[in-house]
Amino acid sequence: MENFTFHNPTRIVFGKGVTTQLGKEVFAYGNRVLLMYGKGSIKKHGIYQQVIDSLRQNGIQWIDYEGIKPNPSLHQVRSAISICREERLDAVIAVGGGSVVDAAKAVAAGACYDGDVWDGYLKKVSWSDSLPLFVVLTISATGSEMNPASVITNDETMTKASFYSPGSYPKVSFLDPSFQVSLPTQQTIYGAMDMMAHILEAYFNGVPNTDVQDYFAEGLMKTILIHLDRVLDQPENYESRAQLVWSGTLALNGLNAAGRGLGDWSSHRIGHALSACYDFPHGMTLAMIMPAWMRYVYKHDIPKFARFAREVFGFSGKEKELASNGIHAFQEWIKKLGFPTSLTDLGVRVDTLADLARNPSIPYPLGKLKELGPEDVESIFRLTNY
Amino acid sequence: MENFTFHNPTRIVFGKGVTTQLGKEVFAYGNRVLLMYGKGSIKKHGIYQQVIDSLRQNGIQWIDYEGIKPNPSLHQVRSAISICREERLDAVIAVGGGSVVDAAKAVAAGACYDGDVWDGYLKKVSWSDSLPLFVVLTISATGSEMNPASVITNDETMTKASFYSPGSYPKVSFLDPSFQVSLPTQQTIYGAMDMMAHILEAYFNGVPNTDVQDYFAEGLMKTILIHLDRVLDQPENYESRAQLVWSGTLALNGLNAAGRGLGDWSSHRIGHALSACYDFPHGMTLAMIMPAWMRYVYKHDIPKFARFAREVFGFSGKEKELASNGIHAFQEWIKKLGFPTSLTDLGVRVDTLADLARNPSIPYPLGKLKELGPEDVESIFRLTNY
Repeated sequence: MENFTFHNPTRIVFGKGVTTQLGKEVFAYGNRVLLMYGKGSIKKHGIYQQVIDSLRQNGIQWIDYEGIKPNPSLHQVRSAISICREERLDAVIAVGGGSVVDAAKAVAAGACYDGDVWDGYLKKVSWSDSLPLFVVLTISATGSEMNPASVITNDETMTKASFYSPGSYPKVSFLDPSFQVSLPTQQTIYGAMDMMAHILEAYFNGVPNTDVQDYFAEGLMKTILIHLDRVLDQPENYESRAQLVWSGTLALNGLNAAGRGLGDWSSHRIGHALSACYDFPHGMTLAMIMPAWMRYVYKHDIPKFARFAREVFGFSGKEKELASNGIHAFQEWIKKLGFPTSLTDLGVRVDTLADLARNPSIPYPLGKLKELGPEDVESIFRLTNY
Repeated sequence: MENFTFHNPTRIVFGKGVTTQLGKEVFAYGNRVLLMYGKGSIKKHGIYQQVIDSLRQNGIQWIDYEGIKPNPSLHQVRSAISICREERLDAVIAVGGGSVVDAAKAVAAGACYDGDVWDGYLKKVSWSDSLPLFVVLTISATGSEMNPASVITNDETMTKASFYSPGSYPKVSFLDPSFQVSLPTQQTIYGAMDMMAHILEAYFNGVPNTDVQDYFAEGLMKTILIHLDRVLDQPENYESRAQLVWSGTLALNGLNAAGRGLGDWSSHRIGHALSACYDFPHGMTLAMIMPAWMRYVYKHDIPKFARFAREVFGFSGKEKELASNGIHAFQEWIKKLGFPTSLTDLGVRVDTLADLARNPSIPYPLGKLKELGPEDVESIFRLTNY
């Protein structure tokens, strides 16, 4: 196990009906806020009404910022920052999934920074200051509701980048699983894929002697496998939604990574290049890249890949076969969920793969389990055509 | 799953050599501190030296408060509070295990409270204020390093009581597993027993639909079973010590309980009566009471006791047999560790059991999986003579 610091100050308020507590929590920090959300599905499902009822009851005024896109753009973030500055707002509320939360984190930090917010993504600055951020989660996937990371896309340079800044933990996140019972099937699946990928980026990173972390990761993965199945069968099953919601938050709140170093993150970064160039959904890029990455690197840690097969899929057998069978089972799970599995089927031409592997979204040298260069990433792209 | 709020603001600094960072963290809160510890074994093992070196390097003055006993007494807590007040100290540092940390929590909160500190244990007051508390952990057991609970003994009334107060999370806890390689075997065993009991108090409490919490709990228990064995065989095995240390902290930092309600806690409270009257070590009382409690209540949740047997001990079979076999395996583990298993062997006379079951340390009605009265507790005492 490696030395680590763990500190996660976000307060989680979890369960049916908890959004009624939003206004009271926000009021401790001010009474003029920016209310950010996506394309408005929260209005159809009564979530928006619950949010503004709670704000009104606590005398909080808000300015709506509607229309945050999946893979949120730097352009939108900058315009929302301008509103915070001009209106001297006290806090930011994100109502949505990871895209809205990530954009809101950027806005909250950017509003307290004199320069351009993209500086944070270029690692020119690490923010300790931010407007207080509150989250009402409507899609479980990114874990952004309990971590200080943000990923956005620079729509001028077509690059996707992230920051991870101690000042950017949400103050309070409200997780009501009943908000997710009406989620489209595809978003539920993409979310589960994202959670699995987060867990695996830390799980497969070559640091030995991490039993307690490994059991934790395997427990999260087993929970996701079991309860995603139930939710696909019964979308309104509150208890299984609750298991997915809490698993998604725990998958990337720092606990799974504590003691493992920083994780590998190759698949995410390769996926970011695909999202930046083709606007593919994040979950879809992970579904395509992660099994290919596994097949490319697994020989560098066969015991861990064998453990994955044993503990998550219940397989037994010899180490090397196990390692390979676990990856196969993971691929089959992804295929069964209906993800596209081939880059060429999605219209990505083979003659562009060399350029794609050199997209600035990919910071080389990449990876921890095995260090990868652009040629390795090209090989991984080719392995997606399975 | 039940609704819950999770908020744990303690910063954990984990690993070899981390105590060098103590002074810098303390300095952010002041430069005059109370340094609390036990009977001085920290001086033998160089831990005290590391602590004061770090304080000196940051210009921090300290007053020693040596001699905190296991099952720390109200008397000592009161006298340490007087010192904090008279000397107008800025912070409290606990160097030790759960007893020292719990006493230091009481001192830190009591120093900011005008009345008598015992009021907090009588639930007459819930403190939001406290002197900043820092922990250098030398014995893993109670999890007190990352929670806001404190248990002390009122040496006048011979009762043991606890508080759980949002203002009492340690600011920063330093967990260096290498400090525990010289721990006496018995303390290592008592500590592991305490961790297991903490996990089980939340695990067996009758709340359904808690897969992610259950896998988490089972992972912690498996880690403890594996690495306690290794540490008993190789006391200086840093990696296994590290697994035990982090498991002990995670066992009672709120995560395992989140969504399960408040847990059962019968075994702890019954054990507190034994410690209050006979000064038995906390871990020993748990080793005696918990299996007896399990045998008394398991029929009220056979599926969960069967799951325990399957997931923690790897058993298979029919539910009812599994449930019983899991308890048996747990008892055998306890016996193998050398714990006394019979109350009468320890000199507790059968004709005192009725009074013992009515000790004010036990707040009736007790328990969540099954609500218990004094007669039930008498029956559980009798079941300890296995």
